[in-house]
Formats: sequence, structure tokens, C-alpha cells
Amino acid sequence: MSYPSHLIKLIAALRQLPGVGAKTAERYAFHLIEQPIRRLEDLAHAVREVPNELSTCGTCGSLVGNDPCTFCDTSRRDAESLCVVASPKDVFAMEETRQYRGLYHVLGGHLSPLQGKGPETLTIDQLFIRLDALSIKEVIIALDSTVDGDATALYLKQELENRSLSVSRLAFGLPMGSPLDYVDGGTLARALSGRFSF
Amino acid sequence: MSYPSHLIKLIAALRQLPGVGAKTAERYAFHLIEQPIRRLEDLAHAVREVPNELSTCGTCGSLVGNDPCTFCDTSRRDAESLCVVASPKDVFAMEETRQYRGLYHVLGGHLSPLQGKGPETLTIDQLFIRLDALSIKEVIIALDSTVDGDATALYLKQELENRSLSVSRLAFGLPMGSPLDYVDGGTLARALSGRFSF
Repeated sequence: MSYPSHLIKLIAALRQLPGVGAKTAERYAFHLIEQPIRRLEDLAHAVREVPNELSTCGTCGSLVGNDPCTFCDTSRRDAESLCVVASPKDVFAMEETRQYRGLYHVLGGHLSPLQGKGPETLTIDQLFIRLDALSIKEVIIALDSTVDGDATALYLKQELENRSLSVSRLAFGLPMGSPLDYVDGGTLARALSGRFSF
Repeated sequence: MSYPSHLIKLIAALRQLPGVGAKTAERYAFHLIEQPIRRLEDLAHAVREVPNELSTCGTCGSLVGNDPCTFCDTSRRDAESLCVVASPKDVFAMEETRQYRGLYHVLGGHLSPLQGKGPETLTIDQLFIRLDALSIKEVIIALDSTVDGDATALYLKQELENRSLSVSRLAFGLPMGSPLDYVDGGTLARALSGRFSF
């Protein structure tokens, strides 16, 4: 006896969530079945209204509500710094540091030659158009510490070389609160080479 | 700069899923934001239609679609066996074994005195009404191997004692494919006491 057809549909829809396999989707589905209608409607509404309620800023690529992008508002942000990130989520991660007050540029991913993702799949052209238009003095590359992130950072560094800009990348080293013996050798080597006097 | 208000709503709705904390809900939300409208509508529809498309059989408590309950169809099922399970999901787990062809009774949970869940919170009265009406010869108690499951099984066994029924519970022992040293002492002790000649 297999699941009722609507349950199969619900499980299939939930499996589309990242990292959710068959077992987890089933668990979510059976949990939802026991929820009051009101709660189901809240979730369905929140999902369905994503395209209406959330959008991407046409300039910087950050996630915004229905209002103009506050990240691009140069009256409130430092217009001389530009932070390059891969995804809209990274913008909020940078904001949480409360150490950065400049502008952002969301690339929309990393370069990945093996997956056929070249510069034309990212918003790199638009980055250069913005750099021409704005009077940016510092570009901070805040990309993942992965092979693709490294490749993308290197590509950007080369492309930015003949502009009079300070280009930097986020530091590599020990995560805060981490015991030394929990850190892999590669990270430790980067932390050593980036050691600082104090 | 905090998340747009709709994103906060979406994250809050996703956090209601079992085992989903703030970080996972954020991950799901940012994934959903990048999905095509069609996929969002599929998920929203699947969630919203749960109350219309899925229901619980008024007799056995199994999860059914809009059709009559096939688990209660005595023309296709063995009407002399009744399997008592805690939740609708367990019915499908039993079906997957392809070893059981009898009827089901879903209790709706386990007894849990510490959480104030007494027999009146389960469908135990209805179980006895069904046993009076049907000509069941064997009751199989297929409850979790937990403290609450054990307590519920024991309670049912006592309540069923003065009926001329064979009452059994699922066997305890080694899970299939499990190395001996991965199994806890309690399980191993139960497997030992339940050892069989072969």
C-alpha cells in the first residue's frame, strides 16, 4: 500500500529543499499533516509570495523587499568601498559584522570552469560598469574559501589590476573560539603565513 | 541591516518544520528565493491542500486520500489480525515489510504519564469498540522501542488480558546488517534473551 497521491506530491515538493532527502521530506510531510490549517496557510503563503514580496536589486544584486535598495543608498553608505560577494545571503553575513559600511556587489555565484560557469554567467561585466561610474577606492573580495572562490578571487584580482584601486581579500586563519587541534593543516598553514604582531 | 520582512516571515514559517533551526530555515529560505515561480507554487499548493487532500480514516486512523480507507477493506485484508501502531506513518512502515495483510489501529501517540498523556488522549476506547465488533484473533503491538512505547504496550497487554486474543509485540534484537559492536548493551541483551535455533 503506497502513500496517498497528495502525500507523494507533498514529499516531492519538500525534497526540493537543499539537503533534504526522502526520509527528511517524509518527516516534514507527516509533521505538516498534523498541523492546524492556519499554520499550513502561513507556510504556503510565505512560499507563494516570495516572487511578489522579495526581489533582487538591479544594481548591486542584494535581496530587497518592495522598497528601494538601502545597500545602494550612498547617502547612508560609504561610497568609496565596494564589497564583492557571491550570493545575496553573504551581504547579510557581512552586515552582521557591523564593521563594513560600504557598497556591495553580488556576483551570483563563483566561477567554476569544470561546471562550465565562466565569467559571463556572473555579474562581472556589471561590476566593471559600476566601478567606472562610481568613485570606488577599495574593493574587498569576500568570497568563499573554496577552490571556486579562490579561482574567482584570482580572476577578479587580475581584471582589476590596471585600475587604481586597493584590492583585498578576507583574511584566512583560525575561526574564533576554535582549538588549534580542531583546525585542518591548510587553515593552520594560512594562519601561520598571515601571522601578525600584537 | 536586517532581512526584508517577508524573508523573516518565510524563515519563521520554515522553522516550524521538525528539527529545523534558524540556520537551516535560512538556508531553505535563500534556496526558495532562487527557485522559479512554478516550483514555489507547487510547494505552496502541496502544503495548502493538505487539509483538503489528505484525511484520517475515522475507523482505523490511517492516513488516506479522498477515497475510502483501503486498510479497512476486509474484502482485501485479513480481518482476523489487528496491528496497533502509534502514528499513521507507522502503518506505511508496516506495509513496506509486505509481511502483514491484516487491519490496523492507529493510537495517535504513546502513553506518557510525565507529559500528562493518559489513555484518554489516545484512541484506546475506540480500539476496544473495534475489537468488540470485529472477530480479531491476533493483536500485534507494533509500538516504538522507547520508554513510552514500552509503557503503552504493557498497558494494552493488561487491558487485553481477559479477551481470548493472541497478543504479541514486535521482536527486539539486532538491526539487519548491524555489526555486533555497534549495538548497545540493552539491545544485545534483548537479542540474547530472544535467541532462536536455526
